[in-house]
Amino acid sequence: MTRAASPSRTLNVELGERSYPIHIGTGLLDEPTCFAPYIVGTQVMVVTNETIAPHYLKRLLATLEKGASRPLDVRSVILPDGEQYKSIAQVEHIWDALLEAGFNRRCTLIALGGGVIGDMVGFAAAAYQRGVAFIQVPTTLLSQVDSSVGGKTGVNHPLGKNMIGAFWQPKAVVVDIASLASLPARELSAGLAEVVKYGLIRDIAFLAWLEEHMAALRALDEAALAEAIARSCEIKAEIVAADETEQGVRALLNLGHTFGHAIEAHQGYGNWLHGEAVGAGMAMAASLSHQRGWLSAADRDRAHAVIERAGLPLAAPANMDSAAFLARMRLDKKNLDTHIRLILLTALGEACISDTTPPDQLDAFIEAYPRR
Amino acid sequence: MTRAASPSRTLNVELGERSYPIHIGTGLLDEPTCFAPYIVGTQVMVVTNETIAPHYLKRLLATLEKGASRPLDVRSVILPDGEQYKSIAQVEHIWDALLEAGFNRRCTLIALGGGVIGDMVGFAAAAYQRGVAFIQVPTTLLSQVDSSVGGKTGVNHPLGKNMIGAFWQPKAVVVDIASLASLPARELSAGLAEVVKYGLIRDIAFLAWLEEHMAALRALDEAALAEAIARSCEIKAEIVAADETEQGVRALLNLGHTFGHAIEAHQGYGNWLHGEAVGAGMAMAASLSHQRGWLSAADRDRAHAVIERAGLPLAAPANMDSAAFLARMRLDKKNLDTHIRLILLTALGEACISDTTPPDQLDAFIEAYPRR
Repeated sequence: MTRAASPSRTLNVELGERSYPIHIGTGLLDEPTCFAPYIVGTQVMVVTNETIAPHYLKRLLATLEKGASRPLDVRSVILPDGEQYKSIAQVEHIWDALLEAGFNRRCTLIALGGGVIGDMVGFAAAAYQRGVAFIQVPTTLLSQVDSSVGGKTGVNHPLGKNMIGAFWQPKAVVVDIASLASLPARELSAGLAEVVKYGLIRDIAFLAWLEEHMAALRALDEAALAEAIARSCEIKAEIVAADETEQGVRALLNLGHTFGHAIEAHQGYGNWLHGEAVGAGMAMAASLSHQRGWLSAADRDRAHAVIERAGLPLAAPANMDSAAFLARMRLDKKNLDTHIRLILLTALGEACISDTTPPDQLDAFIEAYPRR
Repeated sequence: MTRAASPSRTLNVELGERSYPIHIGTGLLDEPTCFAPYIVGTQVMVVTNETIAPHYLKRLLATLEKGASRPLDVRSVILPDGEQYKSIAQVEHIWDALLEAGFNRRCTLIALGGGVIGDMVGFAAAAYQRGVAFIQVPTTLLSQVDSSVGGKTGVNHPLGKNMIGAFWQPKAVVVDIASLASLPARELSAGLAEVVKYGLIRDIAFLAWLEEHMAALRALDEAALAEAIARSCEIKAEIVAADETEQGVRALLNLGHTFGHAIEAHQGYGNWLHGEAVGAGMAMAASLSHQRGWLSAADRDRAHAVIERAGLPLAAPANMDSAAFLARMRLDKKNLDTHIRLILLTALGEACISDTTPPDQLDAFIEAYPRR
C-alpha cells in the first residue's frame, strides 16, 4: 500500500472548453484519481529524462495502471537532461517513438520532469497528428509555478530561446510537492525567481509574505511551498485566462525575461539557469524602472533584496557588454516591428509594458549596470 | 504596365475571428490589392521552390512592393521541389532564414507554390514564435482547390504522411488561374481528383457538371477552371466552417485518402502523385461502398468513369498486397483507438464515416481489388 496523499488543493485555469485543473499536494504521483480522468484514448506515452526517470517513472507507471478503467498501452521515452537538449531534434525522437508504437490521434502524452520536458512534450503533443492530449507532471519548482501552466510550449533555436513552439493547453497539471525533495538548492532558487516575479508584478501582499517565508521555502517547508505554489499558479492562471495567446496583459509575466533570455542565450543554454538569468533580469528591470522615475530607490532596493534572499544573482555577467544584450533583445518575441519592449515596474506589485525607453538611454543603462 | 486582372471572384471561409477570403481570378499575381491588406507588420518572407521561382517569384515581389503603403523588408527562401522534401528538415530551413533575418512575431510568410510549399510554410508559420501570419498563393490545381483552404498544415514523417503539423489558418488565399498554364498535364489530373471528390461527397449536380466539362478542364479552359475551382473552394469552405479541427463532418473530405495515403507512403512519396493515389483510393472506396450494399453498380461505374476521364488510375499498384495496405491504414489519423475508419459513399453526392467493415471483409476486398 502506498501512503495516502495528504490533503491537496485544486485550482482551475478557466479557458472555456480548454479549461483544466491544477492539482497541488504531497504524494500526488501515487494518486490515480489525479491522472485517470484526463487520459484520452488507451495509448499513453510518458516522456521524461535520465535524471528524473530513476526517481519517479516506475511510480507513475504503477499509478497509471492502478487507475485505469480500461487496458492501457503505456510506453515511455527517456531523453537526455538539460536545456541544451531543448531542441527540435529531441522532439523528433518523441514523434519517432509515437509513430513506431503506432499511436493515433486519440493518445495522451505525459510530461514527467522540469520545464524543458514540459515545453518539449507540449510541443510534441501540439504538432503530433495536428494535436493530441497531454498532461503536465512538473517535478521542479520552476515548472510547477510557471511553465506547466498556461499552454506555452516549444523548443530553443541556436539563434533564440523558445523561438519554435505553439500555444497548446494540457488536460491537467499534477504538482507533487514531494518531488522537490530531490531538487538541487540551485534549482530551487531558480524556481523562486518566478515566484518572486508574481509578487513583483501583481501582488504586494504576496511579496511581503515571501519576504517573511523565504527561509522556510528554501528549507523545503511543505506548508510554505504549497502556499507559494498555489498562489503563484493562481496569479498565472488568472493572467492566462485573461489573455491566452499573449496579446496584452500576459506579457507582464515576462518581467526580467527580455534581459534574462539575452543572458541565457549569450552564455549558452544551461550555463546560467533560466531562473538565475530571470533573477538578474528582474533586478535590471527594477533598476531601469527606478531610472525611468517609476519606482522609488527604496522599492528598487526592496525588489533587489528579495531576489537576493531567494539565492539569485543581481549582477549581469561580466562577459556581456550592452551591444551583446541589445543584439539578443532585438529578437525577443514581444517586440512589435523594430522597437524593444520591456516589462517594467510602476510600483511594487504593478507592472507595465513599455517600449518608450530611448535607445541611447537603454544602451547607457545596460553599459553602466553592475557586472560580476 | 502589367495587364489588368480579369474579373475575379472572392469567397469567404467563415471562421469567426479567423475568417479569411479566397480570391480567384486570372492575373491576380499582378494585383497588389490581393496582397497588401493581409500583410501583418513590415517583415515579409516569400517561400517558394526551385521550379516555381523562375516563373513567378519576381512578379510577386514586384506586386508586393507596388502595393506597400509602408516600406517592407521582403526576403525569399527557395526550397527544393517535391513531396520527398516535405519534411521537418525543410521547415527548419525556413525557421533558420526567419531568425537570421531577425524577423519578429509581427511578420508575414507567403507560400508561393503547390501543396507541399503551402503545407510546409503554413506549419512554419504556425510554430514560428508560437504563430505568425501567412498568405497562401497556390500555383497548382491541387493546392488551389484543396490544401490552401482550411488551415491544415504539416510535413511528412518516414512512417506516415502529414503526421506532424498544426491547424493554422492563412490571412488570405490568392488563386491565379493563369499559373496553371505552366502545370504539367499529369499534375492537372492529380488536381482534378480533389475536384471530383467534392462532387462525389457533396454535390451530384457538380458531379454532372464535371462529367460534361472534363474535356474543357483538361484543355485549360479558363472559364471552366474558374467555375470548378470556385465551386470546389465553396464546398471545402462550407465543410471547414462547420468543423475546423475535424471532429466530424470534415473527415468526409478524406474520401479516397486512407487508401491513397497508404499507396503514396508505400511507393515512396513523389512516385505516385497525391492526386493519382487519391483517384485510385476513391475508386476503391466506390467499389467497397458497392460491396457494402450502399452504392448501386451503375453509380459505382459512374464514379469510376469520371475518375478515369480526369486522367487518373482506377487500379491499385501491383506491388501492394492487402497486408501492405492495412499496415499503413492502421496509422491513419482518422482512426480512433484501434478501428480503421473509412469514408464511404452512401450515394453519389453523399458520404459517411464508417468503421463497421469487418476486418476480414476489408482484407478480402483489398486483396481482390484490381491491380496494375
